[in-house]
Amino acid sequence: MYRKEIRVLDCTIRDGGLINKWQFSDELVRDTYLQVAAAGIDYMEIGYKASMDQFDPKVYGKWRFSRDEDVKRVLDGIELTSKLACMVDIGRVNDEDILPAAESPFSMIRVACYLKDIDKAIELGHACMDKGYETTVNLMAVSTNLEKDIDEGLTQLSDSQIPSVYVVDSYGSMYCEDITWLVNKYKAFLPDKTIGIHCHNNRQLAFANTIQAIIDGCNMLDASAFGIGRGAGNCPLELLTDFLKNPKYNVRPILKLIEEQFLPLSRTIEWGYLIPYMITGALNEHPRTAIALRGSDKKDNYVAFYDKMTTPEVVGK
Amino acid sequence: MYRKEIRVLDCTIRDGGLINKWQFSDELVRDTYLQVAAAGIDYMEIGYKASMDQFDPKVYGKWRFSRDEDVKRVLDGIELTSKLACMVDIGRVNDEDILPAAESPFSMIRVACYLKDIDKAIELGHACMDKGYETTVNLMAVSTNLEKDIDEGLTQLSDSQIPSVYVVDSYGSMYCEDITWLVNKYKAFLPDKTIGIHCHNNRQLAFANTIQAIIDGCNMLDASAFGIGRGAGNCPLELLTDFLKNPKYNVRPILKLIEEQFLPLSRTIEWGYLIPYMITGALNEHPRTAIALRGSDKKDNYVAFYDKMTTPEVVGK
Repeated sequence: MYRKEIRVLDCTIRDGGLINKWQFSDELVRDTYLQVAAAGIDYMEIGYKASMDQFDPKVYGKWRFSRDEDVKRVLDGIELTSKLACMVDIGRVNDEDILPAAESPFSMIRVACYLKDIDKAIELGHACMDKGYETTVNLMAVSTNLEKDIDEGLTQLSDSQIPSVYVVDSYGSMYCEDITWLVNKYKAFLPDKTIGIHCHNNRQLAFANTIQAIIDGCNMLDASAFGIGRGAGNCPLELLTDFLKNPKYNVRPILKLIEEQFLPLSRTIEWGYLIPYMITGALNEHPRTAIALRGSDKKDNYVAFYDKMTTPEVVGK
Repeated sequence: MYRKEIRVLDCTIRDGGLINKWQFSDELVRDTYLQVAAAGIDYMEIGYKASMDQFDPKVYGKWRFSRDEDVKRVLDGIELTSKLACMVDIGRVNDEDILPAAESPFSMIRVACYLKDIDKAIELGHACMDKGYETTVNLMAVSTNLEKDIDEGLTQLSDSQIPSVYVVDSYGSMYCEDITWLVNKYKAFLPDKTIGIHCHNNRQLAFANTIQAIIDGCNMLDASAFGIGRGAGNCPLELLTDFLKNPKYNVRPILKLIEEQFLPLSRTIEWGYLIPYMITGALNEHPRTAIALRGSDKKDNYVAFYDKMTTPEVVGK
């Protein structure tokens, strides 16, 4: 038995690009789309939309910007059976970067924001909706917010037209009971909206927490091929696709994609369960300190990193 | 808040040895004991007890046999603050291999068996209890048994003196709802016994399923450093130790053990989440086909392996 309302969003290129500044080959991105579509995944999020005056195109690959013309060129000739999505950050995108949906290959724009920027996110989301896009608001790092502030943000979202709101475990710090608590809260405040889930894998819980979110009623599910994503990465798409009972999903193309693209890629850039990410997850911290460690010559000095991260005078707590 | 009845068993050397025929250096085993004990872990399972006429000591390392004199020599001078455990398989150990507990460094003997051998397991378990050992029965591969057979086996266990019975997800095929179903069943049949949990990580669910088992009432928890174990490995001890709230547990020595021993070891022998193990887990199959694939020159041919494993005339279903 399956729940027909469930939709899966592949965030392989968008979240994976946080590792390598979106320096993916066109061939990899095209193949990702083809296999994700063959697997029956509902949406593929190909990158961020962002203003070219804020990020240097010599440094960042094209999926930092996700211009419509690049999408059309790289996916040229492919029938878009999976909808295309992109993400936008508050203050990083200009109105002119977002064309009307009717003229664009994109179907969905997801607005990522911290709770403090909820008003800006709602305004940007409404602007995207006005242009004809499906729209979500993804509340990042909610594990660090006070309940009164979460409640206030959800109240504002309940008063908005935004149809879909995500629970995001940005730091991979949540246990299944945290997922249940948040999803139930989101559902209580937003009874008529779709609730989404986006998990990180710092403690090998991204897949389990996504299953828990499904049980709790989430119907928008994020995952990425081989779990690629910043730091410990995301819920592995191969596991989620295999788990879901909906006949439209098929894990085989995802296995093909991993074999041909992401296994080789994993030998050149790093993501997944590593002890420094486990430590930041356990401490409910942004992974930036662990990412910095992994880029240094002390990358496997786990005990020294743990001691540093748990010493109050060092971390400023 | 913690549950005082919870006990953690480290199965690093016993389950890890399934990868390398227990060819661990004495220094690694000694260091594992020291760090596991420093972390406050209740039991360390150092290996299997087995008859030397059944396994060639030239091929298998000493923890295939776990003779008391080897334990005493390798752990010489260490105060045994964590209890020592070993595992026995039906038909692989002789009575004379098991000395009375009063003369042995071991406190616990765990009897592993398939459901069909439950009578033999109970008899062997009673023999161990008669010699003064704490004893468990670990019902392997229960995901492949019919419910009527599980019920019959649990009825026999309920009539026995065995004080502790394990739910074992041998193939890493269980979701949290399967764990809940089995733990509740075991509790219903065995209300006065301790229920244990031993998970494999084929679908990155070993830690999550162990948490679920705790929620459901399991009080004996298996885990291994860095998740080492055959195939996809086990519940990572570092994650479990960090999760548990009991003040006696401390994750830092486990991080030290990983940094100094098991990270280097992971570069010479292989375990953990790999697509072939995900496939056997998803199919509720023994990992032997995936292990064989990983030892061949086709080790990353995921699609061909998936096709083979899902072709009825090939797998004989």
